[in-house]
Amino acid sequence: MTVVLTQNAYGKSSVRLTKVSRYPDRHELVQWTLDIQLEGEFADAYLAGKNGNVVATDTMKNIVYALARQNELTSPESFGLTVGRHFLDHYPQISSCQVVIDAEPFQRIVVDGSPHPHAFTGGGSGRRTGAVTMTRSGQSVAAGIVGLSLLKTTDSAFRGFQRDGFTTLPETDDRILATLFDSTWKYKTPDGDWENLHAQIRQKLLETFAEHKSLSVQQTLYAMGAAVLESCQAVEEISLTMPNRHNLLVNLQPFGMDNPNCIFMPTSEPFGLITGTLRRA
Amino acid sequence: MTVVLTQNAYGKSSVRLTKVSRYPDRHELVQWTLDIQLEGEFADAYLAGKNGNVVATDTMKNIVYALARQNELTSPESFGLTVGRHFLDHYPQISSCQVVIDAEPFQRIVVDGSPHPHAFTGGGSGRRTGAVTMTRSGQSVAAGIVGLSLLKTTDSAFRGFQRDGFTTLPETDDRILATLFDSTWKYKTPDGDWENLHAQIRQKLLETFAEHKSLSVQQTLYAMGAAVLESCQAVEEISLTMPNRHNLLVNLQPFGMDNPNCIFMPTSEPFGLITGTLRRA
Amino acid sequence: MTVVLTQNAYGKSSVRLTKVSRYPDRHELVQWTLDIQLEGEFADAYLAGKNGNVVATDTMKNIVYALARQNELTSPESFGLTVGRHFLDHYPQISSCQVVIDAEPFQRIVVDGSPHPHAFTGGGSGRRTGAVTMTRSGQSVAAGIVGLSLLKTTDSAFRGFQRDGFTTLPETDDRILATLFDSTWKYKTPDGDWENLHAQIRQKLLETFAEHKSLSVQQTLYAMGAAVLESCQAVEEISLTMPNRHNLLVNLQPFGMDNPNCIFMPTSEPFGLITGTLRRA
Amino acid sequence: MTVVLTQNAYGKSSVRLTKVSRYPDRHELVQWTLDIQLEGEFADAYLAGKNGNVVATDTMKNIVYALARQNELTSPESFGLTVGRHFLDHYPQISSCQVVIDAEPFQRIVVDGSPHPHAFTGGGSGRRTGAVTMTRSGQSVAAGIVGLSLLKTTDSAFRGFQRDGFTTLPETDDRILATLFDSTWKYKTPDGDWENLHAQIRQKLLETFAEHKSLSVQQTLYAMGAAVLESCQAVEEISLTMPNRHNLLVNLQPFGMDNPNCIFMPTSEPFGLITGTLRRA
Repeated sequence: MTVVLTQNAYGKSSVRLTKVSRYPDRHELVQWTLDIQLEGEFADAYLAGKNGNVVATDTMKNIVYALARQNELTSPESFGLTVGRHFLDHYPQISSCQVVIDAEPFQRIVVDGSPHPHAFTGGGSGRRTGAVTMTRSGQSVAAGIVGLSLLKTTDSAFRGFQRDGFTTLPETDDRILATLFDSTWKYKTPDGDWENLHAQIRQKLLETFAEHKSLSVQQTLYAMGAAVLESCQAVEEISLTMPNRHNLLVNLQPFGMDNPNCIFMPTSEPFGLITGTLRRA
Repeated sequence: MTVVLTQNAYGKSSVRLTKVSRYPDRHELVQWTLDIQLEGEFADAYLAGKNGNVVATDTMKNIVYALARQNELTSPESFGLTVGRHFLDHYPQISSCQVVIDAEPFQRIVVDGSPHPHAFTGGGSGRRTGAVTMTRSGQSVAAGIVGLSLLKTTDSAFRGFQRDGFTTLPETDDRILATLFDSTWKYKTPDGDWENLHAQIRQKLLETFAEHKSLSVQQTLYAMGAAVLESCQAVEEISLTMPNRHNLLVNLQPFGMDNPNCIFMPTSEPFGLITGTLRRA
Repeated sequence: MTVVLTQNAYGKSSVRLTKVSRYPDRHELVQWTLDIQLEGEFADAYLAGKNGNVVATDTMKNIVYALARQNELTSPESFGLTVGRHFLDHYPQISSCQVVIDAEPFQRIVVDGSPHPHAFTGGGSGRRTGAVTMTRSGQSVAAGIVGLSLLKTTDSAFRGFQRDGFTTLPETDDRILATLFDSTWKYKTPDGDWENLHAQIRQKLLETFAEHKSLSVQQTLYAMGAAVLESCQAVEEISLTMPNRHNLLVNLQPFGMDNPNCIFMPTSEPFGLITGTLRRA
Repeated sequence: MTVVLTQNAYGKSSVRLTKVSRYPDRHELVQWTLDIQLEGEFADAYLAGKNGNVVATDTMKNIVYALARQNELTSPESFGLTVGRHFLDHYPQISSCQVVIDAEPFQRIVVDGSPHPHAFTGGGSGRRTGAVTMTRSGQSVAAGIVGLSLLKTTDSAFRGFQRDGFTTLPETDDRILATLFDSTWKYKTPDGDWENLHAQIRQKLLETFAEHKSLSVQQTLYAMGAAVLESCQAVEEISLTMPNRHNLLVNLQPFGMDNPNCIFMPTSEPFGLITGTLRRA
């Protein structure tokens, strides 16, 4: 019998980076987590323990910190391109480099009505991601949102689905729609005003979610993706993932009370999981 | 040998509640998680399996939903008092009822510059908590903040600490101070304008963190607690917990680069953990 | 502009199931979590909110419980086939059904040297998974291990890797090799003695990890995969993921002590991440 | 107004330690996580930023590694005493030192029927903890188990609890009892055969859980604690925490099926939470 290695990749994950840029009037803060994966001529390491082509993952980490020192960190997308370019330029054995960057959101603390020059709160609604894949023949830039909690208290129905002997769910004209939204989208070109693009797309997703008269999570997902493609020429394709975080109407009849779509039990499991990918024709 | 039961308590945890209040111009949304613990005449259940005094934890859950239907949910503190009062009034075997409420933060989505009437994002910086303990002789109301990520890029020093043969940490005049802040405070009286009080205290904590010229995490913690006590007469006591989430300056010398307090590696472990409780004399 | 939906799928995730089978001499216990995803003629739901073809995810959950009542749960793989078959047989609009099952490991408590007939401890080293994908033209069965913590204290070297201006990692002949191992493998045929196959493969993976003289994580990963393919004819392909959970040798020189490969600081981030897929030629 | 600091403490948390002891025939492995908290004359750091008495938490980490090098790590309890003793002996400003150690369980991989000399799997059922508190006037040693998943499929009833207008839970003679068990116990004296004691107590807890005919979680909790006190003279006091992880009987009647205590839906929230502390009279 012969065994063949049909896929291999390796890299460094969870490289955490804080960069402070100190200007006279304010400090700028970036806190990112990077995952790097390389493909290329690495089979000898797997098959024979010959590490000559292997760039140590510790070296990858060093490169991230050095490049962060040398470059302005204007966006995850542009720094991802910088990191990917470094790997392809310096190591001929690499055929493909993927860099995914997850940005911790920070907002300036407001003191006496003004944003503070150097104090921040973290957290927020969803994290921004950027992802770059570079090969010898090209490069692609993607961006996304991870873990954006969304909830609307009305304008969500679910009717007309298939009923059979295993169906107990009642139809509803008015339910809570809650999700922990993830999305990634691919840009057409490897350059762009990444900050503004991300802000526009995020706002478009939020607005569409808010305004949509939903007949199903599927329909809302599609509406959100289509709105992005229609409003933002820079986007080529968008994938969206919407878990349906059910809020169950509580039965208060045993206690002699009605429940006019008022009291719910949010649940974390099980949950529906709806996905879709949209692109231009 | 005789075994004695020196402490016992039981209750229902992670009771999750969503309430939607539907007004003509907007919906109000509450999503809370409640933990209830009871003490009282329950020893027979432990010692003999006699459950006559036991209020089933499932019943506790039902009571939460029923009371949420019957009452306006104006604040975790006031609903905690309502829940605690119900238990003491209906079950003579209960001597003490503790209710802790953790509120998921939701903000209205902004569409065309206006807050949307029924669509929200979750998440945010830190969660609000309310905690009520009621006994036959009185009641106490506490509130708090859990998991508030704070970071300042300067105005934080750490010098003059004890040095001995196990000390390798250099002194610094300028480091990043980052924490995941928790605090709880006790109010003097069981009534108050809980919403405004919490907002004021949160803002005072944020401002003090931002403005403080820190000589140690300990000093900043004290300054934050003292600022609350000095500015808010309703608070009797405040406890604060500040993990020191270290951002390590990266050594770039091997790569021929300086690092003028610019590139850091944030770490999640180990971390310093600083606590303190302050009250009026 | 025209928008097209190029991919869509939906289903129910985290369907949790406990089944107790009561025999005269003992109880058998299964506790599984299922994720179901369907593909097929569902575009109308996305594009037009027409739900006529949509099997509600709540119905999927009901089907799981009903099928669990009607069938012996001999293995995740066989139950996955049962669930997938049900969906394809009952709903012509479905073209593909994927069922992934994650099994909570339970061991019988040992009392007086004997396994107890109905009391168990959970937890354990890694969880077993089964995954089935069924289409109108065929079916594939996969299985796997998730989250298996492995550590060897010697027989792991890392030498001869590429050195350049960003390389600071020293070569080593003897390091700790620690990982949180994940693997999935595809079986050749849709029937098999799934319980015994999984046990054999797990043991082969463990033995190979233990015995391998590792020149790199890559090499150990390949050795483990190859050992499975070589010893188990039923396996067609295996994918392995090995994060390198670094244990850093602590520098004790400042305290006047040596550290002969004895005291380490385990770290959770950053970590190396090594992947590979092997199959028969 | 005068503000007073009524409590303060600080320390280092999540200090992670791996120690390998290399013997001719085998390697011994320890992987522990330590939390250290100090109390003493530290108010000046809080009130005035005067750090002269402050032992840097980084120094605490160094001390852990140095002491781990110098001492055999026979048990969490004995190393906790060593660490605590070091702090009290070297720093007169410290009045109290608490050391909590959480041990990652490792088992030797079995190859050809024999335990391997240097390869291990992690994970397992529950983690062992040791906790030491040392002051100028004495010391106390505690130990415990964290996160032990326990489940019995029968011999658990819940009847005769209080019924009122908010009670909907039916009585049951036969339910699943599942918990994620935590316990800590205090030893009478600061020396003991900690390894054997822990193993005995763990086994006694498991056996009692398995054998008990439970009339309530409260009763089982008490039985488990009492069994430890009755069988192990070294234990002075034991606290136990048992969340009631409900497995809900699934209603299969809509599908024309019965469910004779066979198919359940395990839930993670809400959960009952039962606690108790027992000691010798």
